[in-house]
Amino acid sequence: MQTLHVELGDRRYPIFIGSDLDPQSLLEPYIRGKQVMVVTNTTVAPLYLEHYVTAIEHLGKTVATCILPDGEQYKNIEHLNLIFDALLQAGFNRDATVLALGGGVIGDMAGFASACFQRGVYFIQVPTTLLSQVDSSVGGKTGINHPLGKNMIGAFQQPQVVLADMSQLSTLPDRELSAGLAEVIKYALLGDQDFLVWLEQNMEGLVARDSGLLAEAVYRSCAHKARIVANDEKEQGERALLNLGHTFGHAIESYLGYGVWLHGEAVATGMVMAADLSQRMGWISLEDLERTKKIIQRAHLPVKCPAIPLQEFLAYMAHDKKVLNGQLRLVLMKSLGQAVISKEFDVELMKQAILANQEKA
Amino acid sequence: MQTLHVELGDRRYPIFIGSDLDPQSLLEPYIRGKQVMVVTNTTVAPLYLEHYVTAIEHLGKTVATCILPDGEQYKNIEHLNLIFDALLQAGFNRDATVLALGGGVIGDMAGFASACFQRGVYFIQVPTTLLSQVDSSVGGKTGINHPLGKNMIGAFQQPQVVLADMSQLSTLPDRELSAGLAEVIKYALLGDQDFLVWLEQNMEGLVARDSGLLAEAVYRSCAHKARIVANDEKEQGERALLNLGHTFGHAIESYLGYGVWLHGEAVATGMVMAADLSQRMGWISLEDLERTKKIIQRAHLPVKCPAIPLQEFLAYMAHDKKVLNGQLRLVLMKSLGQAVISKEFDVELMKQAILANQEKA
Repeated sequence: MQTLHVELGDRRYPIFIGSDLDPQSLLEPYIRGKQVMVVTNTTVAPLYLEHYVTAIEHLGKTVATCILPDGEQYKNIEHLNLIFDALLQAGFNRDATVLALGGGVIGDMAGFASACFQRGVYFIQVPTTLLSQVDSSVGGKTGINHPLGKNMIGAFQQPQVVLADMSQLSTLPDRELSAGLAEVIKYALLGDQDFLVWLEQNMEGLVARDSGLLAEAVYRSCAHKARIVANDEKEQGERALLNLGHTFGHAIESYLGYGVWLHGEAVATGMVMAADLSQRMGWISLEDLERTKKIIQRAHLPVKCPAIPLQEFLAYMAHDKKVLNGQLRLVLMKSLGQAVISKEFDVELMKQAILANQEKA
Repeated sequence: MQTLHVELGDRRYPIFIGSDLDPQSLLEPYIRGKQVMVVTNTTVAPLYLEHYVTAIEHLGKTVATCILPDGEQYKNIEHLNLIFDALLQAGFNRDATVLALGGGVIGDMAGFASACFQRGVYFIQVPTTLLSQVDSSVGGKTGINHPLGKNMIGAFQQPQVVLADMSQLSTLPDRELSAGLAEVIKYALLGDQDFLVWLEQNMEGLVARDSGLLAEAVYRSCAHKARIVANDEKEQGERALLNLGHTFGHAIESYLGYGVWLHGEAVATGMVMAADLSQRMGWISLEDLERTKKIIQRAHLPVKCPAIPLQEFLAYMAHDKKVLNGQLRLVLMKSLGQAVISKEFDVELMKQAILANQEKA
């Protein structure tokens, strides 16, 4: 087992990364009160809920559960309210701990509920997908969607502890494993060329779900994100680098309709477009662009999106939340393994980069 | 005009207190982005909304409004969502400012919405009732009710600035003015004997809505609360003193049904019960108890509640949120003008204090 500490001053917390982790001993120091609400979904509950409930009950805690339907379409205010209902029906108070057992949606909702219940109670994360292990484990972003926009309502809420157990990835569908790998690749592309080399050496093992390799990839990804977040907790500057591929990806997701492509799949193609634009601007070489596409393909991720009319693609990009005062800012690659935030790009080259990485209509 | 600074480190903010304040010049330095959402209710909107919208438009801002129905029964998640709807329909982003124009309910809801929208945008408070001027102006508590409990869901959110305009109190119903005075009296009773003497000298003028006296009372009350909150922002200890009269008052409000008595009215009688118990325990004199009742009566507030069966009264007290691990803690008066938090009280004397301050059945 490896331990990574996310350094946030008095909200410093550990991420435990390994296989067949023992929740009882690992969680014990981090559950402060007597009451624990485990929030999970209908997919994860039959697989792992009992394991955690039993472990926490052995610690002498009162455990209640809240099982939400599985899917991003339920990440809304109505289902958030079900968590509040469960907390109050259980008679929990401001001493309660909310434990998120599931992927990103569960983490976002349970985390936000913990931030608001009684104006803030304790929060523990047990991410059960690769994406949530490398993404939601670090950063403290929680929230829900609104019909007029994703993640529009939320809070910054840091957990007391995160348990990232590779054993739980054995039940993850292939597409979701690959979507998680897209975020892993993102960390390498945006800031760590050594990690890119490591991924090039180990991608087959990662796709084959080698626990040791997955743990190493999660550790390196979280460490990378933790460094950035520690410098920029409230997303004023450097943290925007984490959006590599996201503005293009957002347009793909929006055009196709959310849920058709997984977020990681859209980010994967979005990263190709960002790399392509960076190459057209002379920042990275054609060889670098090919390395980018290759590692994405080896993770079984798409490097092209379906044909999308350019005007629609651009309109969706302009609606992305990263637009500040009407000025589109993109995360591009100054060199392979070194991303920058830029509004100094050639719009014509951007259009070429988008069109070059679409299927023919 | 007087200015009080609430000292909270990098979240330090001013409260401007006076009559016929000019919102344009006072708000100008505190609205950071281009977008301002004014949240108000159907009672306040016809009186003061246009005044503020015009002032903010003169600052070159885009102003949108959200007018909620008036009443505590609307302080729920459905009506909170109307604020999010309005923000997103207006196309506002993380640069927006939410301005609360109204009493405590509007302040709580708009403040909570500002804490959650885009994970936190700017917040400005224009409290239009005496109660909200002396209570919600300081402390950063925001939130909504849940069918299973009041203020169960919320956030700590500090405003950029507060405008407390005494001119707006001219339209306040008499009962609401008195309910505000209950909280003013509370500050004197819990920690400031000089302020109590000042209130005894000036209560007639306050009830007659003398602007200068009201401004002085608001200033002194906010200064008192600000000192306590600065020491204890997240309500771990000293801040609990602000609950003088609240545990008894909570039982009265709960038994009668919320909205039958105003919160300030219940707190007034609750403070009499707390003083009565303090006297029975030998901490304050009979004369001190009479002074307490007298100042409350002179503010046109009730010193007795309707007859409530003792067992029900006690059960409601036990449900109060201030109960920690099943242990009832009361705010009592060690001496007049000096409150303490105590679990060392005689339960029999407490019962006597409750029964002595009820109407006969």
